[in-house]
Amino acid sequence: MNTKARILETSLRLFNEGGARNVGTTHIGDALGMSPGNLYYHFRNREEIIAALFDQLEPEFRDALTADLTPPLSAERFAGFYTRSFDVLWRYRFFFGALVDLLRRDEDLSARYNAFQNWALASLEAIAAQLVADGTMQKPSGADGLKAVATNTWLIWMNWIRFVQTSKEDEAITRGDLAQGALQTFDILKPYLTQAFRRAAVKLITNEARETERMN
Amino acid sequence: MNTKARILETSLRLFNEGGARNVGTTHIGDALGMSPGNLYYHFRNREEIIAALFDQLEPEFRDALTADLTPPLSAERFAGFYTRSFDVLWRYRFFFGALVDLLRRDEDLSARYNAFQNWALASLEAIAAQLVADGTMQKPSGADGLKAVATNTWLIWMNWIRFVQTSKEDEAITRGDLAQGALQTFDILKPYLTQAFRRAAVKLITNEARETERMN
Repeated sequence: MNTKARILETSLRLFNEGGARNVGTTHIGDALGMSPGNLYYHFRNREEIIAALFDQLEPEFRDALTADLTPPLSAERFAGFYTRSFDVLWRYRFFFGALVDLLRRDEDLSARYNAFQNWALASLEAIAAQLVADGTMQKPSGADGLKAVATNTWLIWMNWIRFVQTSKEDEAITRGDLAQGALQTFDILKPYLTQAFRRAAVKLITNEARETERMN
Repeated sequence: MNTKARILETSLRLFNEGGARNVGTTHIGDALGMSPGNLYYHFRNREEIIAALFDQLEPEFRDALTADLTPPLSAERFAGFYTRSFDVLWRYRFFFGALVDLLRRDEDLSARYNAFQNWALASLEAIAAQLVADGTMQKPSGADGLKAVATNTWLIWMNWIRFVQTSKEDEAITRGDLAQGALQTFDILKPYLTQAFRRAAVKLITNEARETERMN
C-alpha cells in the first residue's frame, strides 16, 4: 500500500472511531508514526483528507447501485442493493454521521455531495421504475409516486447512522445496527412488491444481516 | 414578555438563522441590547439556552401528537399530526439540523432527547395501531410491522431539515420546504390506508401546505 492510501485508511478508521471533528492531522500522523512534514506533503489539512475519502466513497456507492442491473431485477440483485449500500454506509459512517457539519466547512465538497445525492435519487427512482416494468412492484399512487418512494428510501438510508447515534447514547455503533438499517430501509418499498418477491427479498436481507452480526 | 422569555425568543430566531454553533451569548446579548452580566444572570451559557428551548419544544411536540385523540381517528385529526408536527419542526429547525452535534456537547440533553424520541416512536406506533383498529389502515406485514412504519415516519420527520439543507446548498430553508416534508412523511403510511381515508388526508395536508406557502 502506498503512503497516500495508508494515510487514508488510517484516517478513515480514526474518523469512524472518534468523529472527524475530534481527529486532527497531528493525531493521524501519530497513529502512522509519520512526521507532520511527511503527512503535509500528501495532504495539507483534514479537509483534503475528507475530500479524498469522498473520492473513494462515491464510486463504491455507485457500484453498489449499478452493478448487475440487467432486467428483470431478481430478488437476489434487489436485496444486494440494500446490503451492499449499507456496507458502504458502514465503511464511511463518520461521513454520514456528521454530514451537515462537514459540508458547511467545504463548499466544493458540498456541491459534489449535492450532485451525488441527485444521482442517487434518480438511480433509486430508476430501480423502482424497473421493478414496476418487471411486474414485481405496484406503482405507488400520485404523479410523483416513484420519486416519493425513492426519496424516502434515500432519507432512511442517509439518516440511519444518525438515528442509531441518538438512540444509543453512550454505546458505539456496531455493524449489526447497520444490518438492521437495511431491513428498515427495505420497508419503504415493501408494501408495493408482490408477495413472492417481497418474501424472497426479506429472507435474503435478513440472512445477510444475521451473517454480518455473527461475523462481528 | 419577561426577560427570560425574550432571551429565548431572540436566541431561537438567531439559532434558526445562523445555526446554533455560529451564535454565541455575546451575539444574543447584542441583538437584545442587553449587557453580558444581565444575560448571564438568566443563562450561564449557550448550552443552558439550548436546554431551555428544548424544555419548550418537548411539550409543543407532545401536544401535536396527543391533542384530540378520541377514536375513531378522523382524516382531519390524522392530517393534523403531520401539519402540526411540522410546525414544531419549523419553529425549532436549528435543533434538528444540528442534532448530533448538540447532543454530543450535553450529556443531560442527550438523555432527555433519547427519552423524547422513545416517547415519539411509541406514540406513532399507537396512532398506527388505532388506525388499524378503526379499519382505516391495513396492518403492515411482519411481527414488528407497526413499529417499522412508526420508525420510518420518525426518521423522515427528523431528517427532513437535514435533507433540505444538503439539497439546497446556498439557499435558505423556507416554510414551504417544510410543508413538502409533511407530504413526504405521510407517504410512509399511505400504502396501508383505505382509499377514501388516504384521499381525504392527502387533500387536507396538500391544502395546508399550499396555505402555508402562500402565507410565507
